[in-house]
Amino acid sequence: MAYRTTALRIDRDVALRERIISAALARVAEGGFVALTMQALAEDVGIATGSLYRHVRNKGELAAEVFAVASQREVDALATSVRGPGCPQQRLAAGLERFAARAWHSRQLAFALIAEPVDPEVDEQRLFYREAYAELFVELLQEGAALGVFHVQQVNVVAACLVGAIAEALVGPLSPPARAAREAGYPALSLAEVSHALVTFCLRAVGAQSPEEER
Amino acid sequence: MAYRTTALRIDRDVALRERIISAALARVAEGGFVALTMQALAEDVGIATGSLYRHVRNKGELAAEVFAVASQREVDALATSVRGPGCPQQRLAAGLERFAARAWHSRQLAFALIAEPVDPEVDEQRLFYREAYAELFVELLQEGAALGVFHVQQVNVVAACLVGAIAEALVGPLSPPARAAREAGYPALSLAEVSHALVTFCLRAVGAQSPEEER
Repeated sequence: MAYRTTALRIDRDVALRERIISAALARVAEGGFVALTMQALAEDVGIATGSLYRHVRNKGELAAEVFAVASQREVDALATSVRGPGCPQQRLAAGLERFAARAWHSRQLAFALIAEPVDPEVDEQRLFYREAYAELFVELLQEGAALGVFHVQQVNVVAACLVGAIAEALVGPLSPPARAAREAGYPALSLAEVSHALVTFCLRAVGAQSPEEER
Repeated sequence: MAYRTTALRIDRDVALRERIISAALARVAEGGFVALTMQALAEDVGIATGSLYRHVRNKGELAAEVFAVASQREVDALATSVRGPGCPQQRLAAGLERFAARAWHSRQLAFALIAEPVDPEVDEQRLFYREAYAELFVELLQEGAALGVFHVQQVNVVAACLVGAIAEALVGPLSPPARAAREAGYPALSLAEVSHALVTFCLRAVGAQSPEEER
């Protein structure tokens, strides 16, 4: 009987912790890491702040966990495209298009994951996931180079260039949505226009034919 | 006589302020913005911390000024190359090579200017200078597109991609020197290797022939 009570309690704790993480993720997706305070989160979940601290040690640790959950989804989405069916060029294009669409439709979350100033615990996670993106590109670049469809020598440098180009074009301060929000009169580009420009840039950069050139 | 004393005093103040800014720049180049404290700076200059505050209002303002001075030098260096002699492809290559060499030889300063977490005052400057780099690329891309040597449609997106690729390949956490410092066994690439990979990546990305392809 004592055992059963404990098991039930553990189940309840696990369920509550999941609710906490999802509520924290929703908060970051809505307002960035700056909006993730323990007090506001406790209110979202409907528990006392003191109870919240029984489930998460501190804000830094919580932010790092939220970062990891959200980033792993992005890495998984990119991996599904770049390891999916099709030739390497198509898979690179598909991965970029998918990444662009996700960043476009979850702008605040993309900013939080890629560019928002964050606590050191989160910065460590950011480094880890930035390497994970780069690693996926390295894998694809090597495969494409072996098949003769990509022409790259320093795969690590090229992967870094790709990660930088993608982040700046889609999320950073020079990305069209960021500039349109800041500068009156900046042309409002569509996702399709930005995504197409990015795909063309990256395919050419790795020595593949761009979609137009193939036609 | 009173006028002369005042003029002399103003000259002395101007000279001291210049010494303060140079000492602050040297400190940032050596240890990043984190090493820029008013106390340490006063010691470097050889004045009391109280006197330092007569010449600079506070640390945020000083950091922003140092950032602007150092970034303007980088923008000027890039401008000299991209507006210099030669065809647009050569000028893009020359600008990238120069930027790469400067970042390589002043690694800590490059990190401070591009990637170090900084105060909000400095972040504003960073945005301003990031736009200045992008603007130089936009100008060159438009010129090259008009001459038919570059093939780009969304010049602003392509300029953002270039800025991102350069920053990540040379300075960010995925850049070869950063990875070599972090990971045992990461190949120690030379400046020439990284610079060449970056130039090839960027020239191809804008639809120009890469140096090899031209030969």
